[in-house]
Amino acid sequence: MLQEAFNSIVGRFACQVQWGDCDPAAIIFYPTYFRWFDAATWNLFTLVGYDVRRIRSEHRAMPLVVANCEFKIAARQGERCEVRSRIATWGSKSFTVSHEAVREDGALLATGAETRVWARHQSGPGSVMKGEPISEELKALFRAK
Amino acid sequence: MLQEAFNSIVGRFACQVQWGDCDPAAIIFYPTYFRWFDAATWNLFTLVGYDVRRIRSEHRAMPLVVANCEFKIAARQGERCEVRSRIATWGSKSFTVSHEAVREDGALLATGAETRVWARHQSGPGSVMKGEPISEELKALFRAK
Amino acid sequence: MLQEAFNSIVGRFACQVQWGDCDPAAIIFYPTYFRWFDAATWNLFTLVGYDVRRIRSEHRAMPLVVANCEFKIAARQGERCEVRSRIATWGSKSFTVSHEAVREDGALLATGAETRVWARHQSGPGSVMKGEPISEELKALFRAK
Amino acid sequence: MLQEAFNSIVGRFACQVQWGDCDPAAIIFYPTYFRWFDAATWNLFTLVGYDVRRIRSEHRAMPLVVANCEFKIAARQGERCEVRSRIATWGSKSFTVSHEAVREDGALLATGAETRVWARHQSGPGSVMKGEPISEELKALFRAK
Repeated sequence: MLQEAFNSIVGRFACQVQWGDCDPAAIIFYPTYFRWFDAATWNLFTLVGYDVRRIRSEHRAMPLVVANCEFKIAARQGERCEVRSRIATWGSKSFTVSHEAVREDGALLATGAETRVWARHQSGPGSVMKGEPISEELKALFRAK
Repeated sequence: MLQEAFNSIVGRFACQVQWGDCDPAAIIFYPTYFRWFDAATWNLFTLVGYDVRRIRSEHRAMPLVVANCEFKIAARQGERCEVRSRIATWGSKSFTVSHEAVREDGALLATGAETRVWARHQSGPGSVMKGEPISEELKALFRAK
Repeated sequence: MLQEAFNSIVGRFACQVQWGDCDPAAIIFYPTYFRWFDAATWNLFTLVGYDVRRIRSEHRAMPLVVANCEFKIAARQGERCEVRSRIATWGSKSFTVSHEAVREDGALLATGAETRVWARHQSGPGSVMKGEPISEELKALFRAK
Repeated sequence: MLQEAFNSIVGRFACQVQWGDCDPAAIIFYPTYFRWFDAATWNLFTLVGYDVRRIRSEHRAMPLVVANCEFKIAARQGERCEVRSRIATWGSKSFTVSHEAVREDGALLATGAETRVWARHQSGPGSVMKGEPISEELKALFRAK
């Protein structure tokens, strides 16, 4: 799968490590980062007009192919962070979003990526999803000025 | 709202306290009980033939009105438990499920209840829900023999 | 347990319904509210100086006795909300926090309460917790001016 | 980092996709897999005698370095699965656990891996963690007979 490099806009998703996000080691329970990444991807798409309302009305979906995360510093309760997200690469029917979780003081907590299919439910909400070609128009929305 | 007492069957939902269910106090993070209660209610309905497939195909839903939980003993990682669920009362369009979370050794960890509407999505998955009258046939399914 | 009414300060905890907070009915999965309530209580205590650092260094804990929630309007993905929290009542070693989840447009989504013990880990993080008397000094911190 | 291939025992962790594990697309919300992987790793260590009690009493911890997951088939509510976990490689102070999430009917839902440090809290629960050398004795516990 040949993929082009891409000069993406950057979404910024604010979050904070809560008590319930931490485990008995008193640090963040790692699946929390993936919850953040998912929300950060929705946030990124909202920036270019694909908000929840539009995605739902067009029956679009963005199912995952791969997700990964590299953990750099253990985040602790109360810490405020920002997930910075951008389109890393476009495939023909899929795309990869890269994420950086950065603490308020600038420390890089974690980096990760999600590869997702640009899909559509074939017959309304909850029905089978099928990938759709990614148009140049879609890509253009995410191109940094 | 007049509600009758009810001699209900008892659903048994097995669960275990995981690392990620615990917080920095090294005990269960309390919303975990509500996740269990929700799953236990689905389990109870599955027992009488309302499994996921049927509930989805009939566009049924069981949105919450009230939920509560009383915490007796702090559960800890690794502990195996069972949530015992029964219909406590039937309303005209709603019902209350009572839950007991019991540890493997018989200790009562928590008790709670959920009041839910017996509803249906008006035009397929994800659409608006509306309450429906609870029939005697439905109640009969849950009556203990 | 005799409890006095209390004129409390109000904590405001901002949150947003995320994709992963919703279930196949396309509305908020109800334990999410309890995750918010927990975070909102931490937020309330932070306002009066009991931030994470202090609570940890003093080995304090706030284990739950009871939690409940009444669900008024089904929240949907993307909606921004605020949990407004205040001390409802003080017991001798416990207290009740009341919460209101209010949508950006002012609609009341849910109301709830948590009763918690004012406790301390007896020998450091993760050890056994024991309730402690609630002092007048503690109460004064939460009194609205 | 040179790492040896390893003939590992296989842990089997039973799980089921719950209503609250699914999102509005009516399939599993992907961070759920990482919750399962984490629980499956604890389960694997329990098999060889490193149960919760021992890990806690020895102040051991297994913080994450990297986690990833490849999603093959979208899991749906009610499906029963098993996470099959084994030690993939040993480093000097870290190790990688590979996971396969397999549906009841044998379908492979997802594969993933976690790389973790074999660590110890330096001064009790919740304190700073430091990696420790992985002994031959530890490795031997996980070697398939």
